[in-house]
Amino acid sequence: MLTFQLRTTFVDVQTGDELSVYLHRRDAKEHGIGEKDRLIIGWRGGSPTVVTVNLTSSLIERGQIGLCQDFKKRTGIKKEELVKIQLLGTPESVKHIAKRLQGQSLTYRETLAIIKDIVNYRLDDAVIAFYLSKVFFTNISDQELYHITRAMVESGQQFNFDGQLIVDKHSTGGLAGNRITPIIVAIISALGLTMPKTSSRAVTSPAGTADVFEVLAPVSFSPREIKPLLKKNNAFLIWGADGIAPADDRIIEIANELPVEPFTKLVTSIMAKKVAMGVNCLIVDVPINPTAKVKSLEEAREIEKLFVDLGRLFKMKVKVVFYASFGPIGRGIGPALEARDVLRVLQQKDDRPADLQKKAVYYSAELLKLAGRAKGSQANRQALECLTSGQAWKQMQKIIEAQGGRPNIDSEDIKIGRITHQVKAEESGSVRMIDNKALGWINRSLGNPTIKQAGIYLHRLVGETVEKGDTLFTIYATSQARLKYALDALKKNKIYHIYKGNGPL
Amino acid sequence: MLTFQLRTTFVDVQTGDELSVYLHRRDAKEHGIGEKDRLIIGWRGGSPTVVTVNLTSSLIERGQIGLCQDFKKRTGIKKEELVKIQLLGTPESVKHIAKRLQGQSLTYRETLAIIKDIVNYRLDDAVIAFYLSKVFFTNISDQELYHITRAMVESGQQFNFDGQLIVDKHSTGGLAGNRITPIIVAIISALGLTMPKTSSRAVTSPAGTADVFEVLAPVSFSPREIKPLLKKNNAFLIWGADGIAPADDRIIEIANELPVEPFTKLVTSIMAKKVAMGVNCLIVDVPINPTAKVKSLEEAREIEKLFVDLGRLFKMKVKVVFYASFGPIGRGIGPALEARDVLRVLQQKDDRPADLQKKAVYYSAELLKLAGRAKGSQANRQALECLTSGQAWKQMQKIIEAQGGRPNIDSEDIKIGRITHQVKAEESGSVRMIDNKALGWINRSLGNPTIKQAGIYLHRLVGETVEKGDTLFTIYATSQARLKYALDALKKNKIYHIYKGNGPL
Repeated sequence: MLTFQLRTTFVDVQTGDELSVYLHRRDAKEHGIGEKDRLIIGWRGGSPTVVTVNLTSSLIERGQIGLCQDFKKRTGIKKEELVKIQLLGTPESVKHIAKRLQGQSLTYRETLAIIKDIVNYRLDDAVIAFYLSKVFFTNISDQELYHITRAMVESGQQFNFDGQLIVDKHSTGGLAGNRITPIIVAIISALGLTMPKTSSRAVTSPAGTADVFEVLAPVSFSPREIKPLLKKNNAFLIWGADGIAPADDRIIEIANELPVEPFTKLVTSIMAKKVAMGVNCLIVDVPINPTAKVKSLEEAREIEKLFVDLGRLFKMKVKVVFYASFGPIGRGIGPALEARDVLRVLQQKDDRPADLQKKAVYYSAELLKLAGRAKGSQANRQALECLTSGQAWKQMQKIIEAQGGRPNIDSEDIKIGRITHQVKAEESGSVRMIDNKALGWINRSLGNPTIKQAGIYLHRLVGETVEKGDTLFTIYATSQARLKYALDALKKNKIYHIYKGNGPL
Repeated sequence: MLTFQLRTTFVDVQTGDELSVYLHRRDAKEHGIGEKDRLIIGWRGGSPTVVTVNLTSSLIERGQIGLCQDFKKRTGIKKEELVKIQLLGTPESVKHIAKRLQGQSLTYRETLAIIKDIVNYRLDDAVIAFYLSKVFFTNISDQELYHITRAMVESGQQFNFDGQLIVDKHSTGGLAGNRITPIIVAIISALGLTMPKTSSRAVTSPAGTADVFEVLAPVSFSPREIKPLLKKNNAFLIWGADGIAPADDRIIEIANELPVEPFTKLVTSIMAKKVAMGVNCLIVDVPINPTAKVKSLEEAREIEKLFVDLGRLFKMKVKVVFYASFGPIGRGIGPALEARDVLRVLQQKDDRPADLQKKAVYYSAELLKLAGRAKGSQANRQALECLTSGQAWKQMQKIIEAQGGRPNIDSEDIKIGRITHQVKAEESGSVRMIDNKALGWINRSLGNPTIKQAGIYLHRLVGETVEKGDTLFTIYATSQARLKYALDALKKNKIYHIYKGNGPL
């Protein structure tokens, strides 16, 4: 097998792929390497890494391998480091993928080999896409879904809490606002349950829970910081830690440009992260909404079945709770405005959004019941009291502090974009529907989720009546240019659907 | 919509993707462009081209766009050319792909939009792979297969010969040697039929017909050279011309690393090229062989059905003829050795391979019958006489001359690798099987198809008896190093399967 050595140097190119390296054409020729070939490179103190070849005769000298700055950042590799180079053959897992494409089923070991090779960059993006298309866009057995999920768990970091009860809550997403998670974490852990919550950042929505909570405290922690952090308060709220079901990140990267996500893929992705975190008791929020991800009761039931079946195979208690609505939950949309809503509820301010509090309490109660800590309406009372008594807020202050945030922050301290624009009702009537997708477009054009202070505040919610000239919503922007983008987007995206007159809702 | 201008310069990087361009980080930032974004670029005299962005702060100046040499070669673009840049949004066809992935069927217009965007690089490789996996690796209707094939035809160059009878022959491939095509082209066009034969180069095999014929004459012609070339002798044998069903090239690129090819994909690819070339009468050779692409009669029948059904929809007469064997056809394997076999048959040399002649005559006869030029055994006699009388060779000389080759070449003038190695039989017996795949490996390690003079000559064919010590085959190499590679490969790949003793074959 071909191996040889080269010395590192850095090349100022950003390809969007940190694993691109540059070889001198003559070195490559000497060793029978072509552009687009994949190599395994190894160096002292680094783990073997798969990279892709580009060729040049002038950017680097002979005997050098050119790396980009992102690769340095990721691995800590230095200049003039001696690197061992080996040509990567076609991995065995390609044969398993071919077998699956031809309609045969795979053993667990074969599935694991595929998922591991997805994680370690041994497979070509297109080959992975062929596989994903086959497993997620045609019929898949519970058995195979379990295999894929288990392989995603086992190809990454895993946490084990020795039989301890570990609870969690997750939403299938797609609803603007709906920031119940931080409130539930506070209530549930204040009541003595252990909840190591990992959340995602927004992919296509205005904000993910991680984006919102980052307004209050840092959310990036490495796997080795997780256990000590959890010990402090029996809970945290962090961004899905590095190395937990890492296949999911690669899969998201590859399926990135597709505007659809199959439910099987969604459920696998969520469950893999839960299993890897050691969760054994899980409540799933499935929002049903004509402008969200899940639009019908039928679809919601499909998702429910997937969760429950997978839960059984992993010996995890799972309960799926549907929540139908014609608008978002809460009044603020965008990281800062949503964080303010969360604090208003936890701090029991007068202007707290009632729907957000109600939903958070409801899901907390469901979790208490599933964990066997309360029964019937007692669960709801217990969760509500924890919130109204200030106990939940005290617990949240400890969590914020443990993660390095400012525990004495008041909801009104949160900075919101200074440039505002109010949109008024053109007619009287009642609000029938608020379009999530339209909201998403406007928020995105304001710079969410990256620009945290930007966002939209909804003065009217679904079911409320509106007089002509009333303010429907306020846009908060961080620059005039951004406001202009948002107003342009608004022309093509209607947010409020108002029933004129006094007709039925 | 965002447009701005940059000036071209050239960057010495070969990524394997000629459509990678380099932008200055600050220019990119100013226009809101990130790495991996796709742009449409246009310039005077060039057609709009989709390219992918890489960023740098030092390889080029601000105001420049860096292109690689391959892009220059392809387009003829010059240095300091003014280029208009436009950000490419998500193409509409992504929505059609999403629809198809979710199990809905597409209209012809939707399929055409997808195929066109595949051709013009508007779609991400992974998105294309999701689509291909769905259409080619699950059940597909005749209707959809027809739509895809028609879209492949219509998104490229098309030839129309005004109702003239245009005949052709194609093989599904996978059998070493089997170089009947040049002989058939000579016989059929000598007998007055029009046969514009386009052939492929080898992808994984030792040689494609285009690789072999290139030993005798140039095979690369542009679309505008095709009609005049055909007029000269009513036939040619060229490499599948640029721009004919161009989607196929992109699809091959993307499915490149998969070790399986669904029959639907294979048939679509062949039929699209035939329809685009104006063929209306086609004989398909399907070799059935335990070590080739099609292994069973059942598979062969599956392919037959696909060809016949698609043929009907395109109003093309198609006949599929199976050919079962336990070894290759002909004695030479590798471009030069196969070209020599072809000439030995056309020039009726004493040492011509009998099986190659027999098969070429048989398929010529089938084509004569399908085209209505002869009936029953008369067709075979006509084809054979055309060959033995020297008429076919005279016709081939004209074809070679028209394509710019040397028409007076003798089979024994063809240069073969000078370094030889003979492999002898270790025991006596009869040859039961010659492994195509094993042959492929050895030929590949000799440098086929790129190194044309290298190859293997089979002294014993299936069904022949062998005495211990007889030469089974000779390896022809162009360097000692290549011979060593081949001998190493030979250790792991057994070519001859010999039945010991005098038992049944």
